[in-house]
Order: sequence, then structure tokens, then C-alpha cells
Amino acid sequence: MAVRMGKQTVKLESKPKILSTYTVVGPKEGEGPLKDYFHEILDDDMCQCETFEKAESKIHYSAVQGCIKDANLKESDIDYIFSGDLLNQLFSSSFMARDLCIPFIGMYGACSNMTETLSVAAMAVEAGCANYAIASTSSHFSSAERQFRVPLEMGSQRTPSCQWTVTGAGAMILTNRNVKHRPYVTYITTGKVKDYGITDPNEMGAAMAPAAVDTIKQHFVDTDLKPNYYDLIVTGDLGSIGKKITEELLLEYKIDVRKNYIDCGAEIFDCKKQDTNSGGSGCGCSAAVMGSYIYKKMIKGELKRVLLISTGALLNSISTLQGETIPGIAHAIAIEMDGD
Amino acid sequence: MAVRMGKQTVKLESKPKILSTYTVVGPKEGEGPLKDYFHEILDDDMCQCETFEKAESKIHYSAVQGCIKDANLKESDIDYIFSGDLLNQLFSSSFMARDLCIPFIGMYGACSNMTETLSVAAMAVEAGCANYAIASTSSHFSSAERQFRVPLEMGSQRTPSCQWTVTGAGAMILTNRNVKHRPYVTYITTGKVKDYGITDPNEMGAAMAPAAVDTIKQHFVDTDLKPNYYDLIVTGDLGSIGKKITEELLLEYKIDVRKNYIDCGAEIFDCKKQDTNSGGSGCGCSAAVMGSYIYKKMIKGELKRVLLISTGALLNSISTLQGETIPGIAHAIAIEMDGD
Repeated sequence: MAVRMGKQTVKLESKPKILSTYTVVGPKEGEGPLKDYFHEILDDDMCQCETFEKAESKIHYSAVQGCIKDANLKESDIDYIFSGDLLNQLFSSSFMARDLCIPFIGMYGACSNMTETLSVAAMAVEAGCANYAIASTSSHFSSAERQFRVPLEMGSQRTPSCQWTVTGAGAMILTNRNVKHRPYVTYITTGKVKDYGITDPNEMGAAMAPAAVDTIKQHFVDTDLKPNYYDLIVTGDLGSIGKKITEELLLEYKIDVRKNYIDCGAEIFDCKKQDTNSGGSGCGCSAAVMGSYIYKKMIKGELKRVLLISTGALLNSISTLQGETIPGIAHAIAIEMDGD
Repeated sequence: MAVRMGKQTVKLESKPKILSTYTVVGPKEGEGPLKDYFHEILDDDMCQCETFEKAESKIHYSAVQGCIKDANLKESDIDYIFSGDLLNQLFSSSFMARDLCIPFIGMYGACSNMTETLSVAAMAVEAGCANYAIASTSSHFSSAERQFRVPLEMGSQRTPSCQWTVTGAGAMILTNRNVKHRPYVTYITTGKVKDYGITDPNEMGAAMAPAAVDTIKQHFVDTDLKPNYYDLIVTGDLGSIGKKITEELLLEYKIDVRKNYIDCGAEIFDCKKQDTNSGGSGCGCSAAVMGSYIYKKMIKGELKRVLLISTGALLNSISTLQGETIPGIAHAIAIEMDGD
């Protein structure tokens, strides 16, 4: 049974293990600084599909099948798949799940999807509802761009503060089985919706940073831990601008994360060389970085304790047109690895 | 700890109780056969808002606040809210949650949202993660119609098979507290995505019926129960056409539900008088019917055992334009009430 700690955190006594992960990214991500960590790099981000949306769904499916295969399991072993993506009505997840024979729970948390699905999958394992549960998510630059901003064919100039949606997918299997040498989930801190009045959909980092700050602060209040408990604190996709805002706002609460804090959006691209402005975004961003770079470093013993905080901007194209500000959310999940 | 039963079902040992429910519906629903059961009937489905989407979000918020108030709780007592709706990026849920101070998990299962959110909320309670968790959902005729079909201003003629999206919201609080005389969750059967090749978005009942059949059949296989174990088997929003298909398809599996089976979509309107063709739909449909009519009958002791199967069609407007068929999903949740 989980133990509630403070207002927003639970400690999972069963320590659900992350049995396997699988990440698939597009060609641009495959040329970035983390290229040696991804499981699969696509030559063609259309994956022989007719549309961007179908391509994203196919990438998502590959990630799910990859993590099942790497765990030496079959589809029929998986009790639930918790999936989300950025597309209207979860086009990528729903159509991916159509080709699976696994009970499916669709979730939406914008770019916070990876920790959102991981949190609920971990709760299902903790409850005894699942022996094996998959958490998965995807994003695609071209499907996101035309849905949230403008058609690519317009060739619009990008603002300096904007971010580049990662083409990629990540899937992870959580289990209650007593497997050795695998990272496990210890704490879940679920975020509240925060809105600080940002209206410009090119300022995603600024819109999401207050949500990240709120969840990180609450995690430390609830658990009574200090930032140096973690080898690495990792936000999802705030980009370099959002990362700086987060560091500064946390200092106001006397929480100094500057020594051990990275942001997946700032890491996945070489922003100057690859012309991605403030960095990567999209739910594929934290999924691909967590499932490859960070997971592999944990397995190698180079990282023992990681706090992952995926961050989402809960706007849609209609809310922006209706003059609404952009609500943000961030869910944190603590992952640890034993020394053996 | 939950016990896994068969392939898709879990039995919850902690029997999470449904402490309170609250339903808000529009004027048309308030003139239908269930008018005496709803908690709140709106005079104006715009709720003094500028847009249909904002109105839907406001109705959703009212349902959530109503169920908290009716349970004599405060917002700060609630550990999680699991919410979903039909709008792109969960406009209704996300903007509703912005005005709450409750950790928020967004979910999408189209019209299956009520049992989807209830399932996961029940798992969170079972895991010990939540003492109080809300499951909520909403839909609005006017926001759904222009998003999924055509602008209302076109005044298009409706097909005989089409359904009328319910304007309404429902919220329920689940708890592990030992409250008396409340229905509780016993089994959860989570559905798989099923696609039988329907392409016409006016044929929602036909698209979702195979998913309902698959989940109902699996529920009885997994639990070894018979249909007559339940006083009532209730599908979400198949409408009269989808209901008939479901009855017939179940008979092929030798499962006869004809004596104790109703569909929320067929119940909520007087289809002939109210000109709603095949009946109601939208995630507000099963939420409003379960949270009012069925819940109140359970509290009164008129119903002891209910199997609720909300059904969703996982299409979006782009998937239809891209020539895709319509995948369906259905999640079942068994709710029981002690005789005391």
C-alpha cells in the first residue's frame, strides 16, 4: 500500500520497477547530442505513411513493441497500456492501440504525458491491478506544428523563444516482479493546473515553468528531502528559457537546483547548431530522453536517484483564439536504482 | 490489494465507495424522462459564457464543486481529480481544473470517459494513493457538434442513425473511508481498442457496439458471473441502434442481457418527442445518468448490482478526413450496494 506524504505526494511501497524502455526518434533528434543513446533513429520521419499523424502513430507503435520485445514479453503478458500524445482525441495513441491486444487507457497531459502515464501505471502496479503495465507517449514535429501553430507550408519565421517539437516516442514497462538491477519508482508528486497569464503560444517554457516550480517545491516539502538527494533533477521540455526561469523561481523558495538540474528540451538538441531556438518540446522529448540517456545511465550505475518532472501546456488552438491564457501542469516521479 | 481475474478484469478488495455524485444537465436533457433525477438543470446552456467551450467547462466545474459540497468536504480534502471530455486537448477539463486546487490527471476515452476516470480513480484508492478521488467528465452539444461534425449555423439535416450529444457533466467522489450506505466498486474490466471498419461518423452506435460487446463478454468470462447477477447492465451511449446491435451480438456469444439491459443514450431523451433520432451520446450522457438516476436508485435500495459500460468512439475530425475507420472502446465497472 502506498503512503500519502503531505499534500501531493505518495510513496510507493511496492517500488514498481521499470523493466524495459524503448525510444524511437526522428532524423533531426538522431543528429543531436544524445544520438548514441536512442534505441532507434528513423531515416524518414514519415515512416512510409501518407500523413504526419499516421507516421506519429506508427512511431508510437514501434516504441511499444520495442519495449515489449526487449523485456522478453508478449503482448498478452501486458495488463494495461497507459498512453497519451498531443494530437486531438489522441490520434496517435488510439490508432496505435487499435493494433495492440492490450487493455488501453488514454491520457492527456500535453507534454507532461510521460510522467502522467508513468504515475498512473505505477499506481496500477501498486494496487495489484497490473503485473505489467506500459506507459507510453509520442509527439511529431510536423503533426504538432500544423495542429497548434501554422501549416508548415507557410514557412513562418520562428520566434527566438519558441521550441522545436521532438519527433519521437518512448515506452516503458512497469512491473511488480522481483527483477534485479532495474530502476524503480519511489515517489509520485502529481501537479495542479497553474496559470500565470502567459498568452503567447510561442512562450511555452514561460507558461510551463511556474507549474514545474510548484510541483518541484511541493515534492521537497512533502518528502522532506533536499535537492541534493537526487543525482539529477530533470524537467521535461522547458527549453533553455524555461529552465532559467525555473532555476530563478526555485531560488525564491530557497531551493537551489543549479548543480544537478537539466532539462530534456535543452539537452536533446544542440540548439545553436540545429537551429531549435529555446530547445526541444513535445511529450516525445522527456519520453525519449528519460527512456534512453537517463535510463541507460541508471542501469550503468552512473545515476542512482533521478527526479523527472515532465511539463505540459494545456492550451489548444481554440482556447488561444478565444483569448484564454495558457494553463500549465507538471507531474514529478522519483526513480531510484539500488547499488547492487 | 486488487486481485486479477482473467485477462482484463480486476477485483478491488478495498471496495472503494462512491461517497457522492453530482450531475448538471442542459435544458433539453432537463425536459427528458430523467428530469426528476438530475441535481441541477440549466436554464441556459451557455451559462453566461461567451463560447460553448467555456460554457462546457463551467458546467464541468459546477458538477465537481457540487459533489464536493454534497460530501461535506473541502477542495483540500480531495487527493486527485481524474477528468476528461471530448474537446481537443481536454479544454473543458483543463480549464475547469485551473480553478481548482487539486492534483489533476487528464484522461481521454471519448464517451467512455466516465468509466475510464472511475476505473483509474478506483485504482488510486485501492493503491492507498488517495483517500478521496474525484472522477468527472462533461460534454456539450454545441461544442461537440462544431468540433466533430459541422458548424451549427449550417443547419445540416441530421441522419436517422445519428445521436444527440448530451449537454451535461457528472462528478463522483470515491473514497476508502468506511462510510455506510454507499455503493462501491467491485470489478473493473478495462477495454481494448476495437475497430470493425465503420467509417461514417453518424454511425457512432454501430462503431462502439462491438467494443461494448467485447468488454461485456470478457467481464463475464473473467469473473465467471452471469448476466442475471446484475440488476441492471447499462451501456454508456450506444443509442437505440447501438443497443440493438449489442443485444444481438451478445446473443451470438450466448449472453442474453435483454431482460436487464438499458442504454443511457436511449434513456436520457424521449427520442421521438425530443427529435434526438437514435438517442443521446457524449461523455456527459453516461455520467449524468449514472450519477443521478442509477446512483439514486442504488441509494434507495431499488438496485443492488449494476454493471456500467461507458463506450467511446476514438475518431477525430482529421482521422475521418484521412479516410480512417472509427476505433471504439468500452470500459466496464461493477458497482454494488449492501442491503443494510
